[in-house]
Amino acid sequence: MTDGKTPRPTARRTRLTPERESELYAAVLELLREQGYEALTMDAVAARTRSSKATLYRQWKGKPELVATALRHTGPVPLEDIDTGTLRGDLQQMVRCSDDIQMEKDTALLRGLAHAVYQNPDLHQALRELLIEPETAGYHAMLQRAVARGELPAGAPALEFVPHMLIGAFVARPLIEDRPVDSDYLDRFINAVVLPALGV
Amino acid sequence: MTDGKTPRPTARRTRLTPERESELYAAVLELLREQGYEALTMDAVAARTRSSKATLYRQWKGKPELVATALRHTGPVPLEDIDTGTLRGDLQQMVRCSDDIQMEKDTALLRGLAHAVYQNPDLHQALRELLIEPETAGYHAMLQRAVARGELPAGAPALEFVPHMLIGAFVARPLIEDRPVDSDYLDRFINAVVLPALGV
Repeated sequence: MTDGKTPRPTARRTRLTPERESELYAAVLELLREQGYEALTMDAVAARTRSSKATLYRQWKGKPELVATALRHTGPVPLEDIDTGTLRGDLQQMVRCSDDIQMEKDTALLRGLAHAVYQNPDLHQALRELLIEPETAGYHAMLQRAVARGELPAGAPALEFVPHMLIGAFVARPLIEDRPVDSDYLDRFINAVVLPALGV
Repeated sequence: MTDGKTPRPTARRTRLTPERESELYAAVLELLREQGYEALTMDAVAARTRSSKATLYRQWKGKPELVATALRHTGPVPLEDIDTGTLRGDLQQMVRCSDDIQMEKDTALLRGLAHAVYQNPDLHQALRELLIEPETAGYHAMLQRAVARGELPAGAPALEFVPHMLIGAFVARPLIEDRPVDSDYLDRFINAVVLPALGV
């Protein structure tokens, strides 16, 4: 969470319990859904979670890092923990670990953040380091296991575009079809687009 | 542009020349890029184009319809006008009708609008009627020609998802790769994802 590049003289890091961290992350996402990124303040997080701002700043560097870590922490099962033995199984489990209501809430949340990213380079940076890069590495590992099992040709040109396809599935449904993303739809998309593009 | 559902007693429709309409649409997109949808006012459009607000309201119903029509009008060549004889050729021509600088400007513009859509149901409605539905029909016609030529199986499950894939290509590149969309990238994406997903 801290990279050592910006040491703070007062950085006495008191470890929070994992339960307390989870509470904090859940409160951050709740506030994000209610108010959006711009309007979210560390004061509001402190008030909602009954913690001091000093604790928040000690534990995370600032708002962008807190938001990125909260998203990473409270998302569905980390991709690294999914390993069903087939690529289709892995993709399906990934899609099914959220229930549909949660998925609709998360879609709205991510949509708001996708916009905030372009106004806030520090948020973009934090999301890249703390969320996008670990997730991309997770996809890469999932696909490499499929290559190693002989399910996929090693050099399939679509390999690098799996995250692009899934982002398209999430963004396009509400925009074009005016319907929320749900797990049946994602299942259909994976079978109709992702697997055939990969040559499965 | 008007559907007759909301007749205005003063609606004396003076036809604008096509050149004048083009000027107006270009000015609307310029203002959108500068200020975003929320901040855009009919006053600003009137001032920038030296026209009266009465003319703008007579000609379009309001800001959402003016913006949607401007986007449809000044976009790349309408899909309906592309017919190279192969699906690959059609998709490639679609991608190449914008130059890269224009594409980068349009990506930023569409990103801002994608956000505004969720705050403004009337904008969503106007975009759906005046932009998304005609574009989706254009894709449908392009794909049906390919089916008729025997290039694609009639029931390919990926057929309905072509717009989703292309939207993913546009959204994911700046977000994941931190690079702008350009025509080389779109060419690679079409060859690696869209055509294989369709079974070409």
